[in-house]
Amino acid sequence: MINTLYLPEIREMLAEQNVAELREFCSALHPARTAEFMDGLTSTESWGVIRVADRPIRKEIFTYFDIERQLEILRTQDRDELGELITDLAADDRVDILNELEEEIVDDLLMRIPVEERRDILRLSQYPEGTAGAVMTTEVATLSANLTVRKALDELSRETEEYETIYYLYIVDDDNQLRGLVSARQLLAAMRTPDTQLVDLMETDIVAANVMDDQEEVANKVAKLDLLAIPVLDAERHIVGIITHDDIIDVVREEATEDAHRIAAVDPLDESYLKTGVLTLSWKRGIWLGILFIFALLTALALKQYDEKLEAWAWLVPFIPLVISSGGNSGSQSATLIITALARGHVTLSDWWTIVWRELLMGMLLGGALGLMGYLVTVTLFSSTIPGFLGASVVPLTLFLVVISGTLTGSILPLIFARLGWDPAMMSNPFVAGIIDILGIIIYMNVAIAILL
Amino acid sequence: MINTLYLPEIREMLAEQNVAELREFCSALHPARTAEFMDGLTSTESWGVIRVADRPIRKEIFTYFDIERQLEILRTQDRDELGELITDLAADDRVDILNELEEEIVDDLLMRIPVEERRDILRLSQYPEGTAGAVMTTEVATLSANLTVRKALDELSRETEEYETIYYLYIVDDDNQLRGLVSARQLLAAMRTPDTQLVDLMETDIVAANVMDDQEEVANKVAKLDLLAIPVLDAERHIVGIITHDDIIDVVREEATEDAHRIAAVDPLDESYLKTGVLTLSWKRGIWLGILFIFALLTALALKQYDEKLEAWAWLVPFIPLVISSGGNSGSQSATLIITALARGHVTLSDWWTIVWRELLMGMLLGGALGLMGYLVTVTLFSSTIPGFLGASVVPLTLFLVVISGTLTGSILPLIFARLGWDPAMMSNPFVAGIIDILGIIIYMNVAIAILL
Repeated sequence: MINTLYLPEIREMLAEQNVAELREFCSALHPARTAEFMDGLTSTESWGVIRVADRPIRKEIFTYFDIERQLEILRTQDRDELGELITDLAADDRVDILNELEEEIVDDLLMRIPVEERRDILRLSQYPEGTAGAVMTTEVATLSANLTVRKALDELSRETEEYETIYYLYIVDDDNQLRGLVSARQLLAAMRTPDTQLVDLMETDIVAANVMDDQEEVANKVAKLDLLAIPVLDAERHIVGIITHDDIIDVVREEATEDAHRIAAVDPLDESYLKTGVLTLSWKRGIWLGILFIFALLTALALKQYDEKLEAWAWLVPFIPLVISSGGNSGSQSATLIITALARGHVTLSDWWTIVWRELLMGMLLGGALGLMGYLVTVTLFSSTIPGFLGASVVPLTLFLVVISGTLTGSILPLIFARLGWDPAMMSNPFVAGIIDILGIIIYMNVAIAILL
Repeated sequence: MINTLYLPEIREMLAEQNVAELREFCSALHPARTAEFMDGLTSTESWGVIRVADRPIRKEIFTYFDIERQLEILRTQDRDELGELITDLAADDRVDILNELEEEIVDDLLMRIPVEERRDILRLSQYPEGTAGAVMTTEVATLSANLTVRKALDELSRETEEYETIYYLYIVDDDNQLRGLVSARQLLAAMRTPDTQLVDLMETDIVAANVMDDQEEVANKVAKLDLLAIPVLDAERHIVGIITHDDIIDVVREEATEDAHRIAAVDPLDESYLKTGVLTLSWKRGIWLGILFIFALLTALALKQYDEKLEAWAWLVPFIPLVISSGGNSGSQSATLIITALARGHVTLSDWWTIVWRELLMGMLLGGALGLMGYLVTVTLFSSTIPGFLGASVVPLTLFLVVISGTLTGSILPLIFARLGWDPAMMSNPFVAGIIDILGIIIYMNVAIAILL
């Protein structure tokens, strides 16, 4: 929803180039709200507003613009001023934005920022997507172990602007290897003994991530230990960055959404739903629908094998959807339960035997219940078409067996995917559904043949 | 995986009642790791280890035990000592644990803790599950607006232990109404002007939650603004608590898992997969399987209406699973896309027209593609059974229409659920699947009748 309340005033300030009022507007509210108020402006107008603000505030507001607006500003506005902006942005945010931008613009912008910042951007953009290195920022507060509390507070009070977070202070040796951790809280509590050295204050059992760690594993670790941030180390334990709580929340949300999409056979989107074009989205859905179509085709071919039987026992036909959807539903329940449990670390591969055993039990319980419902239904609603007691037992028995196949397939496939090092969320539900459909038909026909022939 | 490395040593220390060594063990590592090392001990042994540790450390380690162990300790160990522990625990954590415990034990424990703490527990436990009030903790650092920076630092350095986070300091008036916010970072940066009053330093445009706000909305707000914590206010803007980043991560994960389960027609679990009993889990799945069964039954009844046609055109039968699974799959893709986009705030109800229009377009594209595949398949693999060109167009045309019905049903149903104030994740996929199955059959038969009769 666009808030149009202040738009006329803002446009007037812009027309008059009323710098004082524009600066006032930029600093009056939380930068996120200021950005929201500018939703109705063009990119050029938005930049016109924030370019006169103080650099820290300008950067903050820019961060809250949506990615399209950010890119359009970077594409169209004065490159020298944009160079300043890029210099100010958080190291991880600017890499994310530049990754979306055309190469020649990036090159031109990079030429206008200080060399250390440029190196920093290039280094960060090397890490493959999905790794801790790609999520981290390099603005990490490190202190030397032999500093006193007084000196540390003094240093921090001068440099707070520079760091993404100052709530964890990492203690390093001369070689920038991580040695310990002091929290801002501990530092404050130690103000009464200002000559204490950090080395005597620091915790040494530190939880850290490696640059190449998978972002989801890092997020699980941070969530489990309730950390505010986690330091990122290279292979030699040099501290190269930090991942903070806000990035962890983004990772958790991103991974959960991707999993949900994969489970429903949609290739994960790079952008949000409305920002993804209809063609891209159709493609991301179409490839999986195509694969599922092939499975459904195999089901059709399986059914075709039994066409003589189905003509002889035409009363079996109406139950085909019932049989395959019961199997498919119980299978996708199992698959989703196991996939989410694997993602959150609630089960591991070593639990496979427990899982299979539990799913077998549940399959028998649920299959038994559905079988009973199926029996009651066939002897009431369908009694006119079904031949005798033996006939009435075909659908119930099939339901029992199909649900068990569903729970077993649905639980075992994600485990196999995980064992092979693939993402268990990927393809599991389509696979489960496809396999269960075929299995369901084969079970149904063979039960019928065994009972009726 | 249980680490058995230190178990013999720990048991020896316990047998000898070697308090010095036990205390040393408790304080040497990160409390989460200490808790992990005790995985192989009984609850009584674990309590034996941590009861001799310093109270802050004992509380920390206890927090990292899993909930079963925590409950067993609370059920079996010395109540006076446990009263101390409960007093020390974070206000939100202890409410969560006590909620799981038998009432008479809770009453007995509550009698052993100071009256203010007891009131605090009773107040917190009033808020309904899923609200900001139920997630927040009451240990929030508030300061008076007329304090100077020096005094504020001094006060904080004395009381850091008491608060869940000291990184945001909330400035209140005499009536405890929220007036402003100073971050620990700003406070540190202001150390050079120690006589500044907080009122001149504080930000006044503060993002806050209300006690009765939905936890998911609060999490979305915190995530959007990259906050470290959010203050929780009552109806009169008194500050009553705070929700910190770690609780937000838990909420995000919990909501995402619940959504995934609902989407797959599993009633959300209160515990993790392995900790939920087979009977409970069967029930949480069975109720939905039962509902889906009824839908499938309606499909069977719909098919039964067409039994004469199906006997006459028996070659239509093998394509039944193909038709309904194509509709169901495209429908569950749409439903999942819309449900996740709604949950993350990427779409709102006001976008309904855009959504329906996009889904219609995608339905036509995907339906067209599947229809084309269906045509190629019918004229090759199934050419022997299909009567002529008109016959060959039944399945493709059906696929086209069924996929469009799928994308429309899958996108509109979650929107309707959201509009009614229900959780769109709840029942949408089962509903979608059930409705599409029936629709699919009706479309299929009517297309066949229109073309073949």
